[in-house]
Amino acid sequence: MPHPATRTTLVRGGTVVTAEAVFRADVLIRDGIVAAVGDGADWAADDTIDAGGALLLPGGVDAHTHLEYPIDGFTTRTADDFTSGTVAAAHGGTTTVIDFVKKEPDRTLYETFLRRREDARARCVVDFGLHAIVPPRDQQPEIKDDLLRLLDEGVSSWKFFMAYPGTQMVDDAQLLADMTLAAEHGALPMVHAENGHLVAHETRRLVDAGHVAEHHHHAAHPHAAEAEAVHRALTLAEAAGSPLFVVHVSSARAADELARARAAGRPAWGETCPQYLVAAYEDYAGLGERAAGWICSPPIRERANQDALWTHLAAGGLSTVGTDHAGFCLGQPPDLPPQKLREPGWFPGTPNGVPGVEERLALLYHHGVAAGRLALSRFVEITATRPAKLFGLHPRKGTIAAGADADLVVWDPDAHHVLSADTAHSRPDYSLYEGMEVTGRAVHVLSRGDLVVSEGTLLGRPGRGRYLHRTTTARST
Amino acid sequence: MPHPATRTTLVRGGTVVTAEAVFRADVLIRDGIVAAVGDGADWAADDTIDAGGALLLPGGVDAHTHLEYPIDGFTTRTADDFTSGTVAAAHGGTTTVIDFVKKEPDRTLYETFLRRREDARARCVVDFGLHAIVPPRDQQPEIKDDLLRLLDEGVSSWKFFMAYPGTQMVDDAQLLADMTLAAEHGALPMVHAENGHLVAHETRRLVDAGHVAEHHHHAAHPHAAEAEAVHRALTLAEAAGSPLFVVHVSSARAADELARARAAGRPAWGETCPQYLVAAYEDYAGLGERAAGWICSPPIRERANQDALWTHLAAGGLSTVGTDHAGFCLGQPPDLPPQKLREPGWFPGTPNGVPGVEERLALLYHHGVAAGRLALSRFVEITATRPAKLFGLHPRKGTIAAGADADLVVWDPDAHHVLSADTAHSRPDYSLYEGMEVTGRAVHVLSRGDLVVSEGTLLGRPGRGRYLHRTTTARST
Amino acid sequence: MPHPATRTTLVRGGTVVTAEAVFRADVLIRDGIVAAVGDGADWAADDTIDAGGALLLPGGVDAHTHLEYPIDGFTTRTADDFTSGTVAAAHGGTTTVIDFVKKEPDRTLYETFLRRREDARARCVVDFGLHAIVPPRDQQPEIKDDLLRLLDEGVSSWKFFMAYPGTQMVDDAQLLADMTLAAEHGALPMVHAENGHLVAHETRRLVDAGHVAEHHHHAAHPHAAEAEAVHRALTLAEAAGSPLFVVHVSSARAADELARARAAGRPAWGETCPQYLVAAYEDYAGLGERAAGWICSPPIRERANQDALWTHLAAGGLSTVGTDHAGFCLGQPPDLPPQKLREPGWFPGTPNGVPGVEERLALLYHHGVAAGRLALSRFVEITATRPAKLFGLHPRKGTIAAGADADLVVWDPDAHHVLSADTAHSRPDYSLYEGMEVTGRAVHVLSRGDLVVSEGTLLGRPGRGRYLHRTTTARST
Amino acid sequence: MPHPATRTTLVRGGTVVTAEAVFRADVLIRDGIVAAVGDGADWAADDTIDAGGALLLPGGVDAHTHLEYPIDGFTTRTADDFTSGTVAAAHGGTTTVIDFVKKEPDRTLYETFLRRREDARARCVVDFGLHAIVPPRDQQPEIKDDLLRLLDEGVSSWKFFMAYPGTQMVDDAQLLADMTLAAEHGALPMVHAENGHLVAHETRRLVDAGHVAEHHHHAAHPHAAEAEAVHRALTLAEAAGSPLFVVHVSSARAADELARARAAGRPAWGETCPQYLVAAYEDYAGLGERAAGWICSPPIRERANQDALWTHLAAGGLSTVGTDHAGFCLGQPPDLPPQKLREPGWFPGTPNGVPGVEERLALLYHHGVAAGRLALSRFVEITATRPAKLFGLHPRKGTIAAGADADLVVWDPDAHHVLSADTAHSRPDYSLYEGMEVTGRAVHVLSRGDLVVSEGTLLGRPGRGRYLHRTTTARST
Repeated sequence: MPHPATRTTLVRGGTVVTAEAVFRADVLIRDGIVAAVGDGADWAADDTIDAGGALLLPGGVDAHTHLEYPIDGFTTRTADDFTSGTVAAAHGGTTTVIDFVKKEPDRTLYETFLRRREDARARCVVDFGLHAIVPPRDQQPEIKDDLLRLLDEGVSSWKFFMAYPGTQMVDDAQLLADMTLAAEHGALPMVHAENGHLVAHETRRLVDAGHVAEHHHHAAHPHAAEAEAVHRALTLAEAAGSPLFVVHVSSARAADELARARAAGRPAWGETCPQYLVAAYEDYAGLGERAAGWICSPPIRERANQDALWTHLAAGGLSTVGTDHAGFCLGQPPDLPPQKLREPGWFPGTPNGVPGVEERLALLYHHGVAAGRLALSRFVEITATRPAKLFGLHPRKGTIAAGADADLVVWDPDAHHVLSADTAHSRPDYSLYEGMEVTGRAVHVLSRGDLVVSEGTLLGRPGRGRYLHRTTTARST
Repeated sequence: MPHPATRTTLVRGGTVVTAEAVFRADVLIRDGIVAAVGDGADWAADDTIDAGGALLLPGGVDAHTHLEYPIDGFTTRTADDFTSGTVAAAHGGTTTVIDFVKKEPDRTLYETFLRRREDARARCVVDFGLHAIVPPRDQQPEIKDDLLRLLDEGVSSWKFFMAYPGTQMVDDAQLLADMTLAAEHGALPMVHAENGHLVAHETRRLVDAGHVAEHHHHAAHPHAAEAEAVHRALTLAEAAGSPLFVVHVSSARAADELARARAAGRPAWGETCPQYLVAAYEDYAGLGERAAGWICSPPIRERANQDALWTHLAAGGLSTVGTDHAGFCLGQPPDLPPQKLREPGWFPGTPNGVPGVEERLALLYHHGVAAGRLALSRFVEITATRPAKLFGLHPRKGTIAAGADADLVVWDPDAHHVLSADTAHSRPDYSLYEGMEVTGRAVHVLSRGDLVVSEGTLLGRPGRGRYLHRTTTARST
Repeated sequence: MPHPATRTTLVRGGTVVTAEAVFRADVLIRDGIVAAVGDGADWAADDTIDAGGALLLPGGVDAHTHLEYPIDGFTTRTADDFTSGTVAAAHGGTTTVIDFVKKEPDRTLYETFLRRREDARARCVVDFGLHAIVPPRDQQPEIKDDLLRLLDEGVSSWKFFMAYPGTQMVDDAQLLADMTLAAEHGALPMVHAENGHLVAHETRRLVDAGHVAEHHHHAAHPHAAEAEAVHRALTLAEAAGSPLFVVHVSSARAADELARARAAGRPAWGETCPQYLVAAYEDYAGLGERAAGWICSPPIRERANQDALWTHLAAGGLSTVGTDHAGFCLGQPPDLPPQKLREPGWFPGTPNGVPGVEERLALLYHHGVAAGRLALSRFVEITATRPAKLFGLHPRKGTIAAGADADLVVWDPDAHHVLSADTAHSRPDYSLYEGMEVTGRAVHVLSRGDLVVSEGTLLGRPGRGRYLHRTTTARST
Repeated sequence: MPHPATRTTLVRGGTVVTAEAVFRADVLIRDGIVAAVGDGADWAADDTIDAGGALLLPGGVDAHTHLEYPIDGFTTRTADDFTSGTVAAAHGGTTTVIDFVKKEPDRTLYETFLRRREDARARCVVDFGLHAIVPPRDQQPEIKDDLLRLLDEGVSSWKFFMAYPGTQMVDDAQLLADMTLAAEHGALPMVHAENGHLVAHETRRLVDAGHVAEHHHHAAHPHAAEAEAVHRALTLAEAAGSPLFVVHVSSARAADELARARAAGRPAWGETCPQYLVAAYEDYAGLGERAAGWICSPPIRERANQDALWTHLAAGGLSTVGTDHAGFCLGQPPDLPPQKLREPGWFPGTPNGVPGVEERLALLYHHGVAAGRLALSRFVEITATRPAKLFGLHPRKGTIAAGADADLVVWDPDAHHVLSADTAHSRPDYSLYEGMEVTGRAVHVLSRGDLVVSEGTLLGRPGRGRYLHRTTTARST
């Protein structure tokens, strides 16, 4: 079988890392697809990239980003749009992002999806998928048809908020109904697991006591609110017969609940984020108004909480690391309304969200692999393979194997660099990791065989990223 | 780089299954090593094997066999020697066995190893490794030098008996000392986890009550004896700073202990066996003396115990499936002493052990994958990849990737066959699974590129199996 | 200190049983109060009751009755009013009941209380207290003042429904607010712990599948719905800083949640009921429409669930046994609307509730003490002492000690009798325990020194029962 | 029934505290026995003690003392003999001690008992019982007859060491055999729960590393050694069908194991000691050689360990508080060999044991009741009632009720005093609590109606204490 008019690339001399094995091999790419992995001494190709003995990783999959996303009355577009966000992702070694569709007030969920997909197609540098956020019934009473149409379009994961009563929170009745629908059709329910009423109760207590500075946001979101919601979501998903994905698990107690369910064989998975693993309340407790930059929900918790998250991540209680990237500026961007500091000194008015899409792999490699907490294959599994599997993209994404998209990262495990907002490609004007020196860096990044980033230079153009039609049914293979 | 005087084989048209992914690919073998995995349309080879759309698995790794092994005053050689045992293994799709060295009375442990390795080299059809069984101090007071020499020879896992007081049982003092040595040198301690005193106590009670028929063996080995020993071994390993491998976990309660430790991030792994997953006490309770054929320790437990083992196997509480293959005949073999029935009606006199090295993959595929309990990749992981990793053989064994030994199994997932002692290649005259129809069968089996079994015909010769020098340090990559 | 114009009674020759000790003693009563416990050889009294070597128990405290109570559009008065209910209680050895105030549609909660107290004062034969049922905010938006006034009136325990969405269910926001109020003022929050949305979801599934016969009620109330609600209530109470009392725990899984919290030192207690300990789903699964008589919520569960409840009751995971007595007739009472069978063959239309106030002590003694599951003192603790302590009545009620109300039961541990609706004093026309022979019976029952029942004869008159002003703050002494 | 030639005492005006209730009452004593509890306005007596509104407690029961006891080659008699020890106990409000019989080298266990009982009878000021310490089989191969004879003599609790290999440690085989004997005859097995081999292993590591100073004793006894032994003892007791009492639980992890078993309904109880609740490693880590005074086994642990012990004590995971009183001097007593400091700077040579029999109630009252950690009745339960029940002395001891021994303590809850070796009645020359000001003090102490201590003055004479013949079968009433 000849391959007329094909274009081939050979990545030579790397050490392939998959979620299962680490081995020396060359990788032959044909028309953006991995054609073969092995001893390529005899192989010829149009282009050759010399991995120089570095690691060769599957491109990272960040299943949790918020680009051009409306949050708390804002849109993150004022900081990161699909271009700046995916440029940042690519620089960090992430070649797939899965973002969200949140119903716009004047459109149905499905209509919002169509428009948002077009926006992303126009501007993304790497491939992208979209999760649906299921609105409360009072915002869109009839949702079933939309959800099934979205499923047909490859939106195979549906997110629910157990937090934010009055705006996004859905009650247990809706969760049960929609999880049952998901179970019937092979969609994966995702939950933001915090008991919204409990958070509101604590917020009111803090406000009543005058504890309204930015860092008090942390106290408004107790561990118990998260652990309770995880426990409840597990119960509801079991009743509905559906799998469950818990986004951004921040609390060790919440992770314990998940780990217990997983040990009992339940099809449930949890994601945590770099900000919960590496940053801590102690980092921002004393920052005054600048603590706004650390505000996200669930909150960045105490340093003593980190170890258990790492342990769960290594031991399987937690399954993936996404970023929940939602970038804002702390300072006043020109010609824009204020962002993080629109209501200084009043934490209930601060928009939620922290950036991190670019730093994810470096933080996990440095604090995980280099620090001895994660084996190399586990690092790949949690940052690429497992999210690809859970969200209907594997083995197209998340692995290095014949037939897969040639999303590859030449990763220099010994390169040191210093994280800083100044050198990052995401637009926010601050970094949670400012000045942190880390080991490990993406040297070359290929997306479907295209070299999109090479030694820090962007080569991919906005709009080249493709929409990913994702398959149904969470897989645990 | 030309490859002069090499021999190449191409396995075409299979669906490669690894512990991480399932994908269509051809596999090119050069001199017994996997050279490339991918689209082989352009590849030429000396020989071609047509996988015909079947699955292509890494050769199975059975890390727990007893061939030509002295048990309870017998040797299993009277049933299975290294040849018949590895022939059976190969027919079933297993291309690596790891057997044991048990100190002989008139030799040191190291001397026994040298002799046993020669015996195995002379007769094995597939590759083999050897674990050391560490004798109680009173049998060999000075053991450290032997253990370290064995480590130098690739015997990187050391087994301890917490059962059989007075013969093989070691006390906690020795466990602590030898686990500490293991931790210092990267060896992996393995334990037979049953509280030997508790088993002896129950045995005495049964004997006193006249409950001595074969099936009473089951009552002499309560769940609590196993769970207690697992809990204690975990404590001792933690104190010694060593990893831990628990062989043949039979009780759900014992598996619970392991699962709890693993969820807490402890480097501990458990093996279970097909006989605990598929057979049950109810199978032999009414067999009279023939129940001797089901006697092994820990015992084959109640059917109600099985589900939890499957759940732990799928969810990660248990990590591997070995066979503990120790074959005897129930009937009287000509010109040999009686075997299973040397003391009929007296369970304390029955030698322990059941056969299963050939049926392992078929049983796991049928009752696991086909029954919906195990994903296909998980099946490969527990039967090949994980044991290879834990016992210092990965990625040479246990995977299909460039550089690995070309141990491959063309597996027809749709082939049905009936298990029977009559058609099995192991010598015992009975089967725990007699008459059971299963789905899935090894059609072709390659060991380092050699076709050793093809469509039921043995092509490999005794003595071609190589000793595997295993690396140190249990790996959880 | 002379005691002019007093009336004294001496109970001679009994074996006093308290929650702490069992000992031979006489009891001297003066003006309805225990004056002394000890060797009464020298004591004189106006009246003497000969205990004849029987046990002398503190009068039972049933903290969970529904007399003259509106349930599901009915009132239980059609079966049991305050007179018939307390007569039945007295015959069974219970001298204190705590019933409920549920807001009437046209009255505030406080107004309802005033009227209901008068009703009870007019008709009760033994002393009574009242819990408040806190209505959802949409039924009474301003509730705080009423709750505090009720507290002043001795209504020191407030009940919340986590079940029955749309009618009685309160959401987590209200639970948090009202539990916080309880914590501030020393009231004890009680919860009916079932996730109402989950029950509604299961009910809908059953109805959609045509599974609407009476016994399907059981399937509509899964264990998980109860366990989830207990877990959530524990979280909310902890956040509010309040103690927690969970009424009618029926599921072993729910009891496990409570036991775990209690072992961790949380001020939480659970009640179970005789119907969960002694009756079982298997009893009514085959009864057809008559299964309506067994319908209550949470439901009477599978027989396999009972053992764990007994274990928790003995070990402390569960703390009290009340009855949730809510009596209806199965047959058609003359001149009344139909009761249990108003919508035969349609479980959603069946009123909830089972009788049991009379049988409680006998069932607990027989199946608990005589069966070896409960020590004698533990029997007294869970049926009298602990409820008295938790609900602000101890040491006035629930013990035999100087200063306590002389509520005493002469209990013949050897008397056998057969339970039957025919001989019971409660009005329902059926019994869950029809024909069951039990050991142990109340021979004489004293309420504040008055002999209200003697050898099966009622001596107390309706209206003699006094309202009990209960103190605040759950006590664990 | 007249009472000729009796002697009566009336304790007026106290508030009686039992494990169940707190109430105002007078107590009439006749011939050393409580005759009546109640309103004593009409009662006359030979003697009257005015409680003056103070609390009236049952005399404390310390079920764990070592008086005149051979430890590590010493005898504690050089510090505390039966007289000084029971004098100290009486001053502290403890009127019953249960000490131990440890087989002497040249006597059988039974012979040792006879002699030891005579020694105690000659010198004790308050009543005493004796536990048997069951020697390892190599010290007394035939033990069954002795144990049963001891049982006949009222020695109904048998202690086993799981620590101290080579001297006192018994292996699991013996534990199983002797626990089975205990189960058959109603004796209560007690265990010192530490894995002796693990302690020896850690000791060797410390010695090898030169970490031999006194405070390193702490590191030689890890939490895991204790938790493992508790877990194992629970398993063995369950297999033997016997109850279990774990002495001196020091580690929160060990207490967790017990709590888990108790929540599951197992008849197992744990004792902790004041030194584990109030003292901490941090107290002696910096004391140099004087740290010897804090050496006991299990060790006094980190301060962070205390909270969980208090929680378990309040919640029921732990059941009693004894002292393990074993007094030695730190300094050089005249005319005696050195005691705590016989091998200064070498922790393996330091005798185990700390004093505390006098301070027990004050420490528990102050840090427990006054600090809000223990309810008043729970304080009485763990220090008197529960040990009396478990060790076959209730209701003779441990309660205030008709028929009980009149062992009473008039306890002033408001009296402050400063703990000090200078003012203590035990002979050791140091105190773990030196200078600590506590609330609560025994003002008058009665033993069988005799005032043995009054306002700090000893009135009881050595030899008045009686041997307590204890009944069999652990009771959980």
